[in-house]
Amino acid sequence: MQSIRIGRDPAFHYLLRLGDTCLILGQRISEWCGHAPILEEDIALSNMALDLIGQARALLTRAGQVDGRGHDEDQLAFLRAEGDFLNVTLAELPRGDFAVTCVRNAMLATLLKLLWERLQTSSDAELAAIAGKAVKEARYHQQHAADWVVRLGDGTAASRARTEAALEQLWPYTAELFEADAVDEAALASGLGPRWADLHGAWLEQMRAILAAAGLALPEGEIKFRSSGKQGRHSEHMGYVLAEMQYLQRSYPGGVW
Amino acid sequence: MQSIRIGRDPAFHYLLRLGDTCLILGQRISEWCGHAPILEEDIALSNMALDLIGQARALLTRAGQVDGRGHDEDQLAFLRAEGDFLNVTLAELPRGDFAVTCVRNAMLATLLKLLWERLQTSSDAELAAIAGKAVKEARYHQQHAADWVVRLGDGTAASRARTEAALEQLWPYTAELFEADAVDEAALASGLGPRWADLHGAWLEQMRAILAAAGLALPEGEIKFRSSGKQGRHSEHMGYVLAEMQYLQRSYPGGVW
Repeated sequence: MQSIRIGRDPAFHYLLRLGDTCLILGQRISEWCGHAPILEEDIALSNMALDLIGQARALLTRAGQVDGRGHDEDQLAFLRAEGDFLNVTLAELPRGDFAVTCVRNAMLATLLKLLWERLQTSSDAELAAIAGKAVKEARYHQQHAADWVVRLGDGTAASRARTEAALEQLWPYTAELFEADAVDEAALASGLGPRWADLHGAWLEQMRAILAAAGLALPEGEIKFRSSGKQGRHSEHMGYVLAEMQYLQRSYPGGVW
Repeated sequence: MQSIRIGRDPAFHYLLRLGDTCLILGQRISEWCGHAPILEEDIALSNMALDLIGQARALLTRAGQVDGRGHDEDQLAFLRAEGDFLNVTLAELPRGDFAVTCVRNAMLATLLKLLWERLQTSSDAELAAIAGKAVKEARYHQQHAADWVVRLGDGTAASRARTEAALEQLWPYTAELFEADAVDEAALASGLGPRWADLHGAWLEQMRAILAAAGLALPEGEIKFRSSGKQGRHSEHMGYVLAEMQYLQRSYPGGVW
């Protein structure tokens, strides 16, 4: 068995949560390559996937340095088992229809943009530099996804119904995004980055504005369901994502281009 | 890299074509587990998948003995790369909707039943014994799939349209089933088994009867398209099947229950 276990270092976990979320979301968005409803959108989604995978590469490289065991980005992406991935569950859910993809992208791009903004002043100069580049990409991703949510929500009866269904399906998975734990507290204390929970207010405000422009209401009421990807406990979909993503490296260990 | 290459032994290829077709079709049918339109059918399809995988296990075990390099069923199933699988392309196509699954099952169960009937008198006593058990299962598979093709084709306008679409989509892949080559000639000469091409007439007759009962016509005209899974050249879908099927063994080499 060749599998990298991630241990308990909170800084490593903090970087993996962000890096794995970018990686797995990028993998899911890349599934649209060749399948998006119009050519321009096919290219836009593929570019967004590449941005996210680029961010993941930088983050996993930095995570490997912080961890200090000498693992590079490829080893961390391809040689961890499911329980050692710390992406939020929302990122690993199936791509669904185009409405699901757009609503999820709006949710996660908004979160990532808020995170990158704060990480520009991280006490980790490497992470701050990564954030300086990534924040521009995330702003565009948020704008692009929000435009589509508005177009679909404020479009035909069919596109509106699908957008509402997507919102209903995905909303329960947003509770996980803003749960704080020891990993967040350690990051806050060291100046590595903010608690994700501290971004909740701004995130809600921006999501409310996007949904209002689409003629949709922000879902109300407490979310009882808790997904737990950030703790390494994933949905039944995660194994399939990893099988596809890791198969080549698992079959040809150490293979490079 | 750990990957078993299959060489050029025609008897080994003959057994792999049949064993891999059972294995990959079983893998595809198993995708319905938990998703079939009614519970009874969910169980029936899962049982059929288990029958096929059982047949594949016996065939791959025998293939490994004939090959003589000491590979067992698991090694042959999990440690070959795409180009060394010899299943017909029809078996690896996505499961599609229920009509696609039923039409494909009717096509392949009819072929397999005809093959198993002939293989009961194989000069290879092991293969003949496998055939004696498998033929009973394949008869049931054919009957079950044919019943569904009739029910769907002779059902509502929607089920009929889907069945016709499935037939149109899958029919071009049937040409490959009956192409003879050196592997078939060697099997015929040694008494291992019939040329698949020799089963074409009986297959057409039984398919015509199933489709007639469903109120559908056998597609006419020469098929120009040639799929080539039996030669190890697969469709773009095959890699995903293998990634899912082989991932665990590739990640944990040598792992057993």
